[in-house]
Amino acid sequence: MDNQTTTETNITQIIIGQAISAWDAQNKAVSKFFEGENLDRINEVIAPGKNRIGYILGHLIAVNDAMLPILGLGEKIYPEMLEFIRKPDKELENIPSGADLLQRWDEVNARLSDNFNQMTPADWLERHTRVSEEDFAKEPHRNKLNILLNRTGHTAYHVGQLALAKPAGNK
Amino acid sequence: MDNQTTTETNITQIIIGQAISAWDAQNKAVSKFFEGENLDRINEVIAPGKNRIGYILGHLIAVNDAMLPILGLGEKIYPEMLEFIRKPDKELENIPSGADLLQRWDEVNARLSDNFNQMTPADWLERHTRVSEEDFAKEPHRNKLNILLNRTGHTAYHVGQLALAKPAGNK
Repeated sequence: MDNQTTTETNITQIIIGQAISAWDAQNKAVSKFFEGENLDRINEVIAPGKNRIGYILGHLIAVNDAMLPILGLGEKIYPEMLEFIRKPDKELENIPSGADLLQRWDEVNARLSDNFNQMTPADWLERHTRVSEEDFAKEPHRNKLNILLNRTGHTAYHVGQLALAKPAGNK
Repeated sequence: MDNQTTTETNITQIIIGQAISAWDAQNKAVSKFFEGENLDRINEVIAPGKNRIGYILGHLIAVNDAMLPILGLGEKIYPEMLEFIRKPDKELENIPSGADLLQRWDEVNARLSDNFNQMTPADWLERHTRVSEEDFAKEPHRNKLNILLNRTGHTAYHVGQLALAKPAGNK
């Protein structure tokens, strides 16, 4: 590769790395919320009449876990967690304990991170498994990076909701 | 440029374009929330004891407006809106009307979009104005793209909160 190409390749690596860091930062915000006393509050709602804290964590686990097959990185680790996507909170009776949920959260994210560390910029530009080859030819932005950016925003959305559940004075 | 370089340049353009689209999608989610009846509800809180809907919109305007100087794109359009960053909701007495806020929101985002459309991938990798040249040499990820990714997450965070304020049955 000539110098120009090397520079361009470095630029794509830097940019992809920043997108992964942004994803990671949102996941860390969730993990930080559940450090300490909030882990015992999973059956409390984030606001009157709204979802339970534990439902939101379960939902985020299910969404991140589903990234594995969508990105072609293998099967889901916890397929039974799909209930947290398919059903609203009020239809779910048994939620695992906070400690169990947090362990699953960490495990799913570690699996994703391990895979992300091995992916090249070109890998991120490939189509994800939810779009057909035919559609991808017409809509090349429906690549793996798009899943990453979309899920980063999705996690941030729920981090904003979890923040409302924090006890007063515990910013 | 040879073919390889052209391909790499295209990749960086695609990736940057996707990051801008992700930013845009979050802004559109805010705009969509304020279509219709919610524009008259700016003095309602998102949940008991929490921020008013209008405070959140004002806060988002102020944060996006501040991106102009941070990214070296000119001065803020509404510097007086900084109050929505510096002060909590309870210290702000007068909030502009919903229509006024939405007009400012659209104006600030249009100014940003116009500028983004003219920026090259290399521009996004430059340091932003809040980091010194010395620090940037040590931390090259503190570039303009990082501001874009960070602000996208910030907007998503508040979109999640606005969603809680939606009237029941109005998904």
